[in-house]
This record gives sequence, C-alpha cells and structure tokens, in this order.
Amino acid sequence: MWQQQLDEIKQGNAKTLARCISYIENEVAGYEDLLQQLPASQTPIIGITGPPGAGKSTLVDALIGLLVNEGKSVAVICVDPSSPFNLGALLGDRIRMSEWYDNPKVFIRSLATRGSLGGLHPKIIEISDLMKVAGFDYIIVETVGVGQSEIEIAGLADITIVVVVPEAGDEVQTMKAGLMEIADVFVVNKADRPDADLFVKNLRLMLAPAFHNHSMPVPVIKTVASQKKGIAELLKTITDSFNIVKEKEKRSWLLAEKAFHLIQQKKMMAIDKALLKQKIEEAGKDFNLYAFIKNYY
Amino acid sequence: MWQQQLDEIKQGNAKTLARCISYIENEVAGYEDLLQQLPASQTPIIGITGPPGAGKSTLVDALIGLLVNEGKSVAVICVDPSSPFNLGALLGDRIRMSEWYDNPKVFIRSLATRGSLGGLHPKIIEISDLMKVAGFDYIIVETVGVGQSEIEIAGLADITIVVVVPEAGDEVQTMKAGLMEIADVFVVNKADRPDADLFVKNLRLMLAPAFHNHSMPVPVIKTVASQKKGIAELLKTITDSFNIVKEKEKRSWLLAEKAFHLIQQKKMMAIDKALLKQKIEEAGKDFNLYAFIKNYY
Repeated sequence: MWQQQLDEIKQGNAKTLARCISYIENEVAGYEDLLQQLPASQTPIIGITGPPGAGKSTLVDALIGLLVNEGKSVAVICVDPSSPFNLGALLGDRIRMSEWYDNPKVFIRSLATRGSLGGLHPKIIEISDLMKVAGFDYIIVETVGVGQSEIEIAGLADITIVVVVPEAGDEVQTMKAGLMEIADVFVVNKADRPDADLFVKNLRLMLAPAFHNHSMPVPVIKTVASQKKGIAELLKTITDSFNIVKEKEKRSWLLAEKAFHLIQQKKMMAIDKALLKQKIEEAGKDFNLYAFIKNYY
Repeated sequence: MWQQQLDEIKQGNAKTLARCISYIENEVAGYEDLLQQLPASQTPIIGITGPPGAGKSTLVDALIGLLVNEGKSVAVICVDPSSPFNLGALLGDRIRMSEWYDNPKVFIRSLATRGSLGGLHPKIIEISDLMKVAGFDYIIVETVGVGQSEIEIAGLADITIVVVVPEAGDEVQTMKAGLMEIADVFVVNKADRPDADLFVKNLRLMLAPAFHNHSMPVPVIKTVASQKKGIAELLKTITDSFNIVKEKEKRSWLLAEKAFHLIQQKKMMAIDKALLKQKIEEAGKDFNLYAFIKNYY
C-alpha cells in the first residue's frame, strides 16, 4: 500500500501528489501509513510570511518566474485564513498566480486554515513532507502573518522570509515583534515608495545583532515585486543562506520543532473536551479548577 | 500554609496580592498548593483586546474612572508583549494609567508575555483566578491583539471587548478575522474621525448573525476614550451582558476552556525537547519523523 503512489509522485505525477495531499488533509484512512513510508528528502522549504497587503503573492509570483527561467522546478503551498470576511481579497491574489497552473515545473496548492484561528494549517508539516518526495528544487510556503502562523512557519521552513512594506514603521515596532524574531531574511517590498530608504535604514538598525540572538545581521532586501525588481538579489540571498542554514545543527533543530509540534497535536487530541465540560458541570459549588486537574490528569 | 495570605487578600491587602501574583508568576515552591486552595469566586472578568494603536489603554483608563466614580473597585491586568522593540511605546501607555496607583479601589498589574510569542501570558489564568479572591467588583484583562492572545482571552474573560479604530477597514477584513469571532462587544474608538459612521455601518453588516454563530447581533459601541465619550454606554452594555453570559452554560464552557488550556500546558511541559533533539540527532539517514513519533509517543 502507498508504494505505487509514492513512486508516481517521485516520477513527477502531479495528479497523484494532489490526491495524496487531499488524503492527508482529510485524514483518509491509512494516511498515517503513507506518512510513515515517506523517504528522507532534502528539498529546501522557503517560508514567506508578512502582514496582509505586503505583496507576498506578487513576490512569490515573481520568484516562480525567475526560478522557471533558470530551469528550476518549484512547489508552492499558499495557506489562506478561511474566514468568510476575506475570501474576496485573497481570491484576487490567487488569480494572479494562476498563470502557472499549466506549467509542469510549477505545482501550486492552496490550503485553508479551516478555522484553526491564527494557525498555519493543522497538516502543513505532513503535507510539506509529502511534497518533498516529488523532487522539486524548492518548496515555497506562503502564509499571511496572522497570529501563530509566523511562529509556526519558522519551525517548518529552512529559511523564513518576512515581507513588509515601507509604511509599516509603527506596525513593525509594536505588532510584529514575532515577525522580527523569526526572520532569516527581510524583504521590504514596494520599495519605490517614498521613505523606503529611511524605513530600510531603521529596520537594519533594529536588526542589529545586539537586539536578537542571530550571530549575523539579518539581510534586508529591497524589492518592487510588481516590476520584478530585486527578485534576483532575493533569490541569491536565499540560496546563499541555504549554505549556512543547511548545517546539521539547524536541521536537527527543525526536526525537533516539527516533532514537538506533531506530538503536541496528538496529545491535545487526546484531551476529551466534552468529558471535561461534563465533569465540571457535575462538580459542586466549591469547585477548584486546580485541584480538579490535579486529580484527573 | 497559604491560608493567612488568602485571608489577607480577601481583606483587601494589595501587597499580599501583589506578592502572591509574583509567586505564581515565578512558580515559587508551593504555588500549586496556593492555587488548589483558592475559594470559588464569581468576580466577572472583562477582556479587552484589539490591534496596537486602537486606544485600549485610554479606554481602560476611562473605564476605571467611571467605575471608581460609581464607588466600584477594579483590578486591571495589562499583558504587554515583551519584545525589545516596543518597550518605549508601551511604557507611554502605562504612564497614563499610573494616576490610579495610589487609589485603594484600583489594583493594576502589568505582566510581560516573556517571549511566549503571540500568547497572552503563561500564567494568566492562574493569576486572574487569584485576583478573584480579593473581591474586586470587576477584573479587567487588557492585551494587545497579537497572535494567539485574542483567542486565549475569549477562553478567559466572561465578556470579550474588541477595540478597533475607524480606519481599520481593510485590517478588519483580512487580518483580524480572529478578533471578529471572539468579540462579545465591539468598540469603535476614536469615533470622531471622518468615516467613523460608515465604518460602524459596515462593521454591523459584517456582524449580522448570518456570518457567525452568535444568536444575537454583537453590539457595536462608538467611543472617544480620550474625551471619555461613550464610556457610560460601554459600561452599561458590559453589565447588561453579564446577565446573559453569566448563564451556567457559558460558565461551564469557560471553565472547560480553562481546564483544557491548563492541561495542555502541563502536557507540553512534559515533552522533553532536548531529549527529542538528541534522539533525532542519533537517528540515521533514513529518518522518518512519523515512524519516530509513533514509536516514542
């Protein structure tokens, strides 16, 4: 079981890959066996995140174009929050990317977060591990930097790129502290706007090694993704970084992060919330939560 | 042990309360016993969240003023992200609130998230439960709506108030889907700005029952906190809501949420990340994460 599918995926069969992703997404019977049979793979994962409106999709689109031009193959996972409120906006972005759907060098898959509020996607680790089997040169995981996703992406990607726009000034200082800490590379997109240079300067100051635990300054790249400007420099920075981050230390750290996340999910699933609620309802007036937990868990 | 401290806290001794909060925060030996001895309490918790710059601190400040005028007592927990990048901005907000520090009816405590990225505070449930012992009329928990905190606050507070500003238009549509889903009350602060009415109208449309699982429309209150405008209406909406949310159903749901969160934390602590990393490093080249987890957990 699954060996045939895995062979087909290895040979570049996009349909089988798409189908097996759906099996994992929907937890079709046997999907855990499939995962346990995945061969080891070194395909690097490029994580791209940042606030809404930073131009992540346009940037990914430009990156795909450059990679395809260089004869490389690339798989893209787009994780979109699945709220009724933002369907329109996101669909617009995705349409731009659709020109690649017929290109055999490019595989694009959208995943909705399905109400896992602020999370990346409950099966993103598993799905990206499956994608690695297909032998693409790169895997790009693109996600809106909402809630936990920016932290989760750092535990998933071999390199994490945070995209911001020049007017993000205040945002970066207050809201996106999380983004600061996970970025391996910063992209200031829409860098043709006024004050872009000042913003880049301030960002570089903030990213000075004194302020965080990176041993080297985090690169800051200026791009205008809609005009394909700065994309080549970005790609070079990415590939250069792989020579650093590919170190065994970082790889085993990443694997431990993934394992931690998967185990955590398993343990959470094992907590029976309904039973918990029932027992709490049965409890008397002098109910003490901490004594309760101590007795039951 | 602890009975004397609990008695002092009940009698309104702010110093003992502050000290015991620190015990919990720092997991001083015996703090778990303290928690298991907490008497049941019904003090309602008002959660206030929203994006940076929405004016949450000013709003809380105005609420404190109104409550004190009415002869009520209130405890406030401010949860601030503890990133080196935003210290300045947040300190400014806090200084405004400091006029209350000498008022015996008001107890204010700031907690830093301590790098629990995007989280509320690792001990927020425990600390707010301790605060309930002191017999304040209300407890306010104020937190920047970053990351997971907005979800966590809904599992902690008896009523969750989401503060936004008129120009948040696009923000609300894309980024803050999480905020939409947890709000019991919406506050549109700085409502004297142009387009405030249009924004409120759109917000009310979005919050129509068709779009979410509340049985009643979520109230939207306009305030100008810096001029104390709309605060009385907000407080009335809050106290009215308590008559609804105090139902047994909601209370046991909240307790189950808290229990779930506490159990989850316990189980996560039990995962030995360093050992995980070590075992992964020892594993061979054909390492499969899923088989590994199946064998070990």
